[in-house]
This record gives sequence, C-alpha cells and structure tokens, in this order.
Amino acid sequence: MTPTTETHGYSTNKDPLIKRLRRIEGQVRGIEGMVDSDRYCIDILTQISAVQAALDKVALGLLTDHAEHCVIGASEDDRPEKTQELMTAVARLMRRG
Amino acid sequence: MTPTTETHGYSTNKDPLIKRLRRIEGQVRGIEGMVDSDRYCIDILTQISAVQAALDKVALGLLTDHAEHCVIGASEDDRPEKTQELMTAVARLMRRG
Amino acid sequence: MTPTTETHGYSTNKDPLIKRLRRIEGQVRGIEGMVDSDRYCIDILTQISAVQAALDKVALGLLTDHAEHCVIGASEDDRPEKTQELMTAVARLMRRG
Amino acid sequence: MTPTTETHGYSTNKDPLIKRLRRIEGQVRGIEGMVDSDRYCIDILTQISAVQAALDKVALGLLTDHAEHCVIGASEDDRPEKTQELMTAVARLMRRG
Repeated sequence: MTPTTETHGYSTNKDPLIKRLRRIEGQVRGIEGMVDSDRYCIDILTQISAVQAALDKVALGLLTDHAEHCVIGASEDDRPEKTQELMTAVARLMRRG
Repeated sequence: MTPTTETHGYSTNKDPLIKRLRRIEGQVRGIEGMVDSDRYCIDILTQISAVQAALDKVALGLLTDHAEHCVIGASEDDRPEKTQELMTAVARLMRRG
Repeated sequence: MTPTTETHGYSTNKDPLIKRLRRIEGQVRGIEGMVDSDRYCIDILTQISAVQAALDKVALGLLTDHAEHCVIGASEDDRPEKTQELMTAVARLMRRG
Repeated sequence: MTPTTETHGYSTNKDPLIKRLRRIEGQVRGIEGMVDSDRYCIDILTQISAVQAALDKVALGLLTDHAEHCVIGASEDDRPEKTQELMTAVARLMRRG
C-alpha cells in the first residue's frame, strides 16, 4: 500500500481524468445494454475495442504524468526503483494484465 | 446496421455475460474512486490493466461464441464474408481499437 | 505434433508468405545493425514496433486461412475442437505470447 | 536523424542485446522453414507469438535503459521532450506499430 496524502502526477488534472473514466464507465454500461437487446456480436466486439482504446489513452496519460512528476521528481536514490516500477507498469499494459 | 431479432452466439449465456460486464463497470467506477482519493499512479495503472484483461476475456468469449454459432452456422455462401468479419474483429482487438 | 503431409490453409500462397517472413528476418537483422552502430534507442524501438506490426499481419493472414480452410473445412465432429484451437491462438496473439 | 556518436542507454550491454536479436532472427528463419515444410498453421502461430514475446522483452529492456540513461540523464531543459518521446514509443508498442 502506498500513502495517499502526497500529491501525484495526475493531481493537476484530476477532473478531466475522472470525466474520461466516467465516459468509459458509460461505454461499458452501453455494452451491457447491447447484450441485453441482442445486438450483433461483431458490433459488441467493436465497442469493446473502443473501450480498450479509451483505457489505453487514460493509461498513457497517467504514465506520462507519473514519469514527469514522480520519476523525474524523485530523489536520486529513489529514481532507479521508481523507473523500474514504471517499466513494470508498461510491461503489464503491453501484455494487458 | 444488423437486425437484432435473430439469436446470436452469446444468446444462451446472456446472463453471465451481463454479470461480467457489470463487474467491469464496477471496476471502472473503482478506478474513478482511486483517482478521486489521490491513490498512487502505479496502483491505478494496475487496476486499468486488470480491466483490460477482463475485457479481453469477454471479447474472447464473444469471438468463440460467434465463430461457433454465426460463422459455422452460416450458409456456405455467407461464410467467407462472416469469416472476414470475424478476422477484422480479431485484428481490431489485437491492435486494441 | 501434427502431421505435415496434409495441405494447410496457407498452402496456396506459401511463396508470398515466405517472402514476407524473409523481409521480417531482414528487418530484425537491420535492428542488430542499428544496435551495433549505436543508433538512438528510440529509433530502434520504432523498428521493433514495425516488426511487431509486420508479424501481426502475417499472423492475421494465417488465422484467416486457417479459419477458412481448416475450421470450416473440418468435419462436423472436429469443428468444435478446431474452433477452440483457433481461439486459443487468438488469445495468445492478443496477449502476445 | 539522431547523431550516432554519443553513448546510449544500452551501450553497456550491447553484446547480450545483439545476441538476443540474433536468436529472434533465427526464430523467424525457423518459421520460414515451418511454412516451407507445410507445418500445421496453429504451430506456426504459436511460434509467431513466441517471437512477439521475445521482441517485447527486448523493447522493454531498451525502454528501461533509455529511461534510466537518456531521460533521467538529460538536462532539466531536455527532459520534458525526452519523456514525451519515451511515451510515444510506449504508445507505439502498446498498439504494436
């Protein structure tokens, strides 16, 4: 667990970030509706790809903020660990989970 | 646009599918909460990767149902087009959107 | 292990397929040369992305040939297993290995 | 174009990097052989996934070296641009090309 009191890379644009996540949440709800109303499988898959792309964009934004703020802003001693942590996150995103 | 009256590959397990999508919707809402309470960027990225992995699973399930039901079940004449459509969906999922 | 005597989905266009793979092999060799001559990391990464995209295209072509030829051409009894096998390959490509 | 005289993040482990790329080149050549000897499509796809995974590993290694060396080592003025460049490379790897 990481303390939640410090500021983070994304702190300065929390509102647009939450707005984007809310839109993604709505897209997922829309897919539920598509399944419920028996929409064509391929159309549903297209929507899933759209959600994936939107999540990738959010992830890249967070990675960039994190690199700029937390990695570069870290003390010389903490930086190697922070860089490693960043790359582990990149690896996870490349393999998707 | 595709007609919505016919049955689809996923028709027999609509309920578990909707349940899984609802869980994913909840995960996205959880990420909003993490941003709102200033959680550590890397922890948020881990959650985004988890949502991507869950969406990949849903997509693979839909692809399989579609292949088994709509592609193989298609008339000989429609099959090449259906197969092409399936592969376009696979390509989109590989590139993510 | 699978017998190698039967014809496969890609049999009719083996030559262009081998040509594409040979080009990919050359691209990888080009990357070795870039490392050897101390080229800029980001330029090397761009080339790696290009190879990945080229491999994705080859994979999609093989998947399509396989779906059209081996899955649809299978006996009714073998088809569920063949479809499952196809989807396992898709899953592996989506997660990349 | 980027000058090639400066040292890079990967300079200290050029030999193992070239060795890994040579192995990947050999894997691609192996896939050509599989096509040539009419091996089963799914077995070929499995090998393609293996090459993709190997390339991802090389890419992650390069990204880490680059982050540690070129981004963090950059002057304060150059760092935002270097970080942006790194993230563009990550985005390309996530979408694969």
